[in-house]
Amino acid sequence: MKIAVLGTGMVGETIGSKLVELGHDVRMGSRTATNEKAAAWAKKAGAKASAGTYADAAAFGELVFNCTAGNGSVEALAMAGEANIDGKVIVDIANPLDFSKGMPPSLFVSNTDSLGEQLQKRFPKTHIVKALNTMNCSIMVNPRSLPDTHTTFISGNDAGAKTKVKGVLAQFGWKDEEMLDLGDITTARGSESILPVWLRIWGATKNGAFNLKIVAAKP
Amino acid sequence: MKIAVLGTGMVGETIGSKLVELGHDVRMGSRTATNEKAAAWAKKAGAKASAGTYADAAAFGELVFNCTAGNGSVEALAMAGEANIDGKVIVDIANPLDFSKGMPPSLFVSNTDSLGEQLQKRFPKTHIVKALNTMNCSIMVNPRSLPDTHTTFISGNDAGAKTKVKGVLAQFGWKDEEMLDLGDITTARGSESILPVWLRIWGATKNGAFNLKIVAAKP
Repeated sequence: MKIAVLGTGMVGETIGSKLVELGHDVRMGSRTATNEKAAAWAKKAGAKASAGTYADAAAFGELVFNCTAGNGSVEALAMAGEANIDGKVIVDIANPLDFSKGMPPSLFVSNTDSLGEQLQKRFPKTHIVKALNTMNCSIMVNPRSLPDTHTTFISGNDAGAKTKVKGVLAQFGWKDEEMLDLGDITTARGSESILPVWLRIWGATKNGAFNLKIVAAKP
Repeated sequence: MKIAVLGTGMVGETIGSKLVELGHDVRMGSRTATNEKAAAWAKKAGAKASAGTYADAAAFGELVFNCTAGNGSVEALAMAGEANIDGKVIVDIANPLDFSKGMPPSLFVSNTDSLGEQLQKRFPKTHIVKALNTMNCSIMVNPRSLPDTHTTFISGNDAGAKTKVKGVLAQFGWKDEEMLDLGDITTARGSESILPVWLRIWGATKNGAFNLKIVAAKP
């Protein structure tokens, strides 16, 4: 599949490299066509990898991964251009982290709204699917690196879009029973609210290589 | 030990009954000395159980469980009276749920503050220990009812107070490695932030008998 990865940080690089490894054609998008990190990534990742502007990448991809910082996500999708993203599925991995009030970061939107909802509202013709935002990126693309099953939460308004995203996550190694569909995009308020506890578990255990598992009694 | 349980709801009843079963002397506190639910609970729970006002219960207990609704917790502790709670450990199980904005409930304090912190600030001579607030009450007192290990988060400013609470939780059946000390009371922002996703997991799975487990890679 042709896939756009928006964002040149560690999450974008990790997702992009995994997608290339799986045989997809990946274009990494950033603010400028000459972003050095994106170019270096594309060179290292090989023939199926390329780099360009957010608009270049979005036009190229039939599926879009939003790996930008949460406070830059609206702007990144706006720069990608509605003509290039409308009708497409956007996997929203971003979190609304606010580093301006000290550490650990708080959230700039939470509780009665979410970043996922803000993106869906601002770009109503896209299909925003919140997923993978509750763990570090090495676990996103290699869920089997943990010694037990665990969970990624899925939120989105469109069932077909969620099925498409689950298909790619399955290629990453996610088992069907590990992908919990919480419901429509308002349920991103739930998964984004994991960040405050995620950060404090990391602080207490000094180990960011973890994820949460739902342990349920037999019904 | 003599223990106060503030609150006559399902959480208070379940915690109170478990403490009596373990051999503790338990007084359930409520707004009035003649609360029918508290009296019925005390009658059913036996000779080691009694009921009274918040102040009666707090004066009786050397340890206090706050099992009131989050939006009534400050008032309940104020009614208990600082003379009766100062210097004591208060296990804060409450969550700041706001049912006024529709279902699922949102939080009336979150992100940059927490109910645990608000209680600690308002009653500075008590030792607030946030614990058990991230699961239903049957699991709080019977953690071994789930088919795997799982986690309760502990937040509080006083190490001795946290050790005391962990001792009671161990009597409930919690294993030492299942009780994760997140740090000071500000980390209650983390555990209270689980509620938004807890509610949506419950909504998606239709099973409230679950808890979260931290699955970590070996360091």
